[in-house]
Amino acid sequence: MATAGKVIKCKAAVAWEPNKPLVIEEIEVAPPKAKEVRIKIVATGVCHTDLYHLFEGMHKDGFPAVLGHEGAGIVESVGPGVTEFQPGDKVIPLFLPQCGECRFCKSPKTNQCVHAWDAGVMSTPDSRFTCKGKKVLQFMGTSTFSEYTVMNQMSVAKIDPAAPLDKVCLLGCGICTGYGAAVNTAKVEPGSTCAVFGLGAVGLAAVMGCKAAGAKRIIAVDTNPEKSEKATVFGATDFVNPKDHSKPISQVLSDMTNGGVDFSLECVGNVGVMRSALESCVRGWGVSVIVGWTDMDDFAARPIQLMAGRTWKGTLFGGFKSKDGVPQMVKAYLDKKVKVDEFITHNMTLDQVNDAIELMKHGKCIRTVLSVSPQ
Amino acid sequence: MATAGKVIKCKAAVAWEPNKPLVIEEIEVAPPKAKEVRIKIVATGVCHTDLYHLFEGMHKDGFPAVLGHEGAGIVESVGPGVTEFQPGDKVIPLFLPQCGECRFCKSPKTNQCVHAWDAGVMSTPDSRFTCKGKKVLQFMGTSTFSEYTVMNQMSVAKIDPAAPLDKVCLLGCGICTGYGAAVNTAKVEPGSTCAVFGLGAVGLAAVMGCKAAGAKRIIAVDTNPEKSEKATVFGATDFVNPKDHSKPISQVLSDMTNGGVDFSLECVGNVGVMRSALESCVRGWGVSVIVGWTDMDDFAARPIQLMAGRTWKGTLFGGFKSKDGVPQMVKAYLDKKVKVDEFITHNMTLDQVNDAIELMKHGKCIRTVLSVSPQ
Ligand SMILES: NC(=O)c1ccc[n+]([C@@H]2O[C@H](COP(=O)([O-])OP(=O)(O)OC[C@H]3O[C@@H](n4cnc5c(N)ncnc54)[C@H](O)[C@@H]3O)[C@@H](O)[C@H]2O)c1
Ligand SMILES: NC(=O)c1ccc[n+]([C@@H]2O[C@H](COP(=O)([O-])OP(=O)(O)OC[C@H]3O[C@@H](n4cnc5c(N)ncnc54)[C@H](O)[C@@H]3O)[C@@H](O)[C@H]2O)c1
Ligand SMILES: [Zn+2]
Ligand SMILES: [Zn+2]
Ligand SMILES: [Zn+2]
Ligand SMILES: [Zn+2]
Repeated sequence: MATAGKVIKCKAAVAWEPNKPLVIEEIEVAPPKAKEVRIKIVATGVCHTDLYHLFEGMHKDGFPAVLGHEGAGIVESVGPGVTEFQPGDKVIPLFLPQCGECRFCKSPKTNQCVHAWDAGVMSTPDSRFTCKGKKVLQFMGTSTFSEYTVMNQMSVAKIDPAAPLDKVCLLGCGICTGYGAAVNTAKVEPGSTCAVFGLGAVGLAAVMGCKAAGAKRIIAVDTNPEKSEKATVFGATDFVNPKDHSKPISQVLSDMTNGGVDFSLECVGNVGVMRSALESCVRGWGVSVIVGWTDMDDFAARPIQLMAGRTWKGTLFGGFKSKDGVPQMVKAYLDKKVKVDEFITHNMTLDQVNDAIELMKHGKCIRTVLSVSPQ
Repeated sequence: MATAGKVIKCKAAVAWEPNKPLVIEEIEVAPPKAKEVRIKIVATGVCHTDLYHLFEGMHKDGFPAVLGHEGAGIVESVGPGVTEFQPGDKVIPLFLPQCGECRFCKSPKTNQCVHAWDAGVMSTPDSRFTCKGKKVLQFMGTSTFSEYTVMNQMSVAKIDPAAPLDKVCLLGCGICTGYGAAVNTAKVEPGSTCAVFGLGAVGLAAVMGCKAAGAKRIIAVDTNPEKSEKATVFGATDFVNPKDHSKPISQVLSDMTNGGVDFSLECVGNVGVMRSALESCVRGWGVSVIVGWTDMDDFAARPIQLMAGRTWKGTLFGGFKSKDGVPQMVKAYLDKKVKVDEFITHNMTLDQVNDAIELMKHGKCIRTVLSVSPQ
């Protein structure tokens, strides 16, 4: 490659400060260092966690950054010591690494590689990006709102060359997260009753996961009535809008299910909803999984909720070991065993990223896929 | 029996109001109704949950009541339709029923019989007690601080006639709760590292459970340094007093264990300790179990604690199906597979119940066993 070993100047959407539109800038992307891979991003989804960083978390030391973490692309060049990847490989950048060597990677119990939170919760200061002479942070270790990004090889999944990148990019976050939350973390059982709170891509994927696991009843819950129709596409049997009821939603679900659901999944990122999701579970064996993200507040409940036999869990990337799981999910998509296309409601270009963000902010999309570089 | 079918006048310790000493009174105990059993209580332990009701929870509608829920006795008479028990049977009253017929009893996943919270959280208004013309409530459905009590047969366990009642009474609550919390609820694994917060009978039994399950390291945590020695008797390998450290206890435990324990058990009943216990777990797979009781406050933590792979559970009666589990634990004691005698630091009579309560309040005992009626 003509660009190998050189700094690449390219286009990226830079978040200069919290709560402001992203700015399309020319940035410099340094060549990959040892064990790193430079990736040309072909397509990326916009996930609520991008919006969270920009509008909700707004951590001062998290800017300027290139957001985006749900991408797919092609290896442009590799740094010293990389044998696993070659230029031209189709890949998905992983916000969760899998080094394969730590005690967490070696345990079948977890996907939380020891390097998972290496870079702090959200932004890696050690990026290969600069813009106008300033260092720009790498969001979630990925930064897919850029034509090029540099990743450690432990955070890159090589995928089937037949995979359409403008579709499978969504397997880089939302779909694997929701699907895995149901299948891997909650371990939804055949014949069970489930409730999914929040019907963005994460929640809809959770619905799909519940269905794949054999749930007999899947109650989809969202305050936005427009989400009802899509939920049915992924397998929901009921839709409930909490706003249609004067009783607390946990009571509504308990009444609908003779005492509560077997599994509930919170896919909103709101501690009040996390509590409702727990309280919606049947006592004795109900399992509630926190999937939505927030680091601003505590989640809370009365001790009796757990003493009565409920279990509270959380999930990162749906419990998938990232490097192993993503290629398998790509294959499952190619084999038509999991849906991906149905999540995509809009297609745009990177230049339109602020429009895509606005759509999500107002609940007007499931996923917008941005085309980033031409393939 | 000469007393069968008649009201029995006998001695009981009545809690007339919150935060006051119990009063030894003559009470009337009506005969058992259909499916009920009247039991002569021979011995009873004093558990922190009795103190909780009296000094902490202090629910206005929970008085007057006869406290005590960790007893053992002998069937005096049975009501119509009882075939399972006969006068003279040695029994342990169960604060957790096991009807054997509900969907919870039929599921191997839980011990939470549908009748578990029938009577509200603590006090059953439908008691067979009166005193000075007033109805007296039945605490936790048991009320063992009385020479006689009446229980539904679904809440009575028949035990081996060889069992010494002044010992096995402790299997009616504290020991089964702590032991089962480790073995049944946390499902402690061989070779694992555990932390137990609070070293009353419940916590010490949890230590014993961790050891029985094969834990290789058991860190006992208590703010009372006098608890250290007993913890060793039950299998603790380390003792930590949070007051000896300026760092948060979760940090201390994390430092001691290279990232946190595999299992933690909260046996105090304090929501701050519940949080510490969760935060003391290793990410990836750490499991924290709430055993201590409080209904005054919410427990809480940051969502990232669960997202990082921890699980939060709770336990009632250590996850034992009560009627099945208690006779088995009695047998395990008779077979010298679980310790009971070592929990008993004091022996007194029912008349001295207030002294026993004071001992526990000031951390001066593990368990006091009160002899109630002569055998
Ligand atoms: N755990 C992980 O690894 C992980 C990964 C990706 C995303 N996330 C998080 O998952 C959450 C969902 O992401 P998304 O991209 O699907 O977001 P989204 O914005 O597309 O969807 C959120 C949905 O929640 C609904 N909602 C809002 N308030 C609600 C309430 N009170 N009750 C019910 N529904 C309500 C909204 O109407 C919307 O449909 C976010 O918090 C995101 O940060 C977590
Ligand atoms: N879940 C159940 O089914 C169940 C059953 C029985 C008892 N309980 C509860 O279990 C708890 C323990 O009961 P017990 O009879 O063993 O009580 P106890 O009073 O004998 O023991 C409590 C211990 O906790 C220690 N402690 C207090 N504050 C502490 C702190 N901040 N950090 C560490 N240790 C601290 C005390 O020094 C004491 O040793 C109580 O809350 C009781 O209500 C629950
Ligand atoms: Zn995401
Ligand atoms: Zn690893
Ligand atoms: Zn007790
Ligand atoms: Zn039952």
